[in-house]
Amino acid sequence: MPTQTSQPAFVLVRPQMGENIGAAARAMWNFGLDRMRIVAPRDGWPSQKAVAMASGAGRLLDEARLSPDVPDAVADCSYVFATTARQRGLTKPVYSPEAAMKLAAEKIAAGEKVAVMFGPERAGLENEDIAKANAIISVPVNPAYGSLNLGQCVLLTAYEWQRQVAEIDHEVVEMGKADWATGVEIEKLSDHFEDRLMEAGFFYPPEKAPNMKVNLRNLWSRMALTNADVQMLHGIMRQMVRWKKRGEE
Amino acid sequence: MPTQTSQPAFVLVRPQMGENIGAAARAMWNFGLDRMRIVAPRDGWPSQKAVAMASGAGRLLDEARLSPDVPDAVADCSYVFATTARQRGLTKPVYSPEAAMKLAAEKIAAGEKVAVMFGPERAGLENEDIAKANAIISVPVNPAYGSLNLGQCVLLTAYEWQRQVAEIDHEVVEMGKADWATGVEIEKLSDHFEDRLMEAGFFYPPEKAPNMKVNLRNLWSRMALTNADVQMLHGIMRQMVRWKKRGEE
Repeated sequence: MPTQTSQPAFVLVRPQMGENIGAAARAMWNFGLDRMRIVAPRDGWPSQKAVAMASGAGRLLDEARLSPDVPDAVADCSYVFATTARQRGLTKPVYSPEAAMKLAAEKIAAGEKVAVMFGPERAGLENEDIAKANAIISVPVNPAYGSLNLGQCVLLTAYEWQRQVAEIDHEVVEMGKADWATGVEIEKLSDHFEDRLMEAGFFYPPEKAPNMKVNLRNLWSRMALTNADVQMLHGIMRQMVRWKKRGEE
Repeated sequence: MPTQTSQPAFVLVRPQMGENIGAAARAMWNFGLDRMRIVAPRDGWPSQKAVAMASGAGRLLDEARLSPDVPDAVADCSYVFATTARQRGLTKPVYSPEAAMKLAAEKIAAGEKVAVMFGPERAGLENEDIAKANAIISVPVNPAYGSLNLGQCVLLTAYEWQRQVAEIDHEVVEMGKADWATGVEIEKLSDHFEDRLMEAGFFYPPEKAPNMKVNLRNLWSRMALTNADVQMLHGIMRQMVRWKKRGEE
């Protein structure tokens, strides 16, 4: 059974080696985190190598939620961080682990669901994954030598989470009770706009289309949209389509 | 050659596996630390396994100072920390990694020489070693599960050193070749959407129209939009209108 504490989910996106998934579980549990989610692990699931490495934190693997893709993994989350080592040319807030876990703690105290995504060992997260996040976490490593591995990145982030909750244990942050849109709502909004705009011929020329789509998705996920905002944006698109159809009759 | 920055020495006391010495070198150099000292490594020195694991941080191993015992290793230091996982029943100040590295930074800035000792993988430092230290560093791990290894302990301590000496990194936003939109640009965007949506019959029923318009303007102005975002949103609306007009021809 997971612990009852409120905490972010840690999402391992397309992890490659089972050993590293096990090491991530240990790193998390060292700091009291036990909500692991795993997206499309390269070598299948469950993993004997993960279990062997997780010694004592194996429960996290048993209880890990497996997802086929990132949208499924963060569908219930209203705020998603992406950890990256390099600059990616996407317009997004970039936080240190400390600032990010402080923000996460505030959001979770206000009732939001928060996730942190970690990319595959070799290449890290794809821009497509990062576009689905609200903000970036970047560990300020030595510019002459950045070689944090997956387990180390999970460790530092979990450590900062623990530091932040230890500090705000006493002062619980009160925030205005807005109903933030969840990941699945943002995903549906993105799909809706993308589909209609495709129909309308917006993504032109074809060679630029993939990049235009990423930028558009990045726009929606970067904005702190409420339920009401999402409904209004859906309504705008539906109305434009209705208007077009009326013109055709 | 070691870097010219002032920094604490990290002393690995009787480390067992070469791999862990290599991992410690990487962890240190990730955060700009390059003064390693090694006391009586179990498997001899130099170590091929350490070199293989240190990839890119091998210089730290070449330059590491080898000592036969702890007194020799810290002979030139005026303040020594000992990292421990458990309480040892010794009367000594106990610091978190954060507080310890803050203190270390202050002492080093005042011209003192500071060392941090890390014990062997299995058992940690002996009480005899700890007795030679001025203070203890204890990482606040999950009381139900403390399983930090040598490399992880070095990583967290090095990370905290870097945090203490680095400029406090507040939120920075990574700008993907974009500037923030100005007030007048947001105003024009609002006008554009309002005009077209009026034409399209979006603001309905009439008694709700003023409120809907306010909500829409509020949405654009609340979002941190860049120039590029504003252009994309203009483009979306223009394309929907073009699409409608094509339908009419």
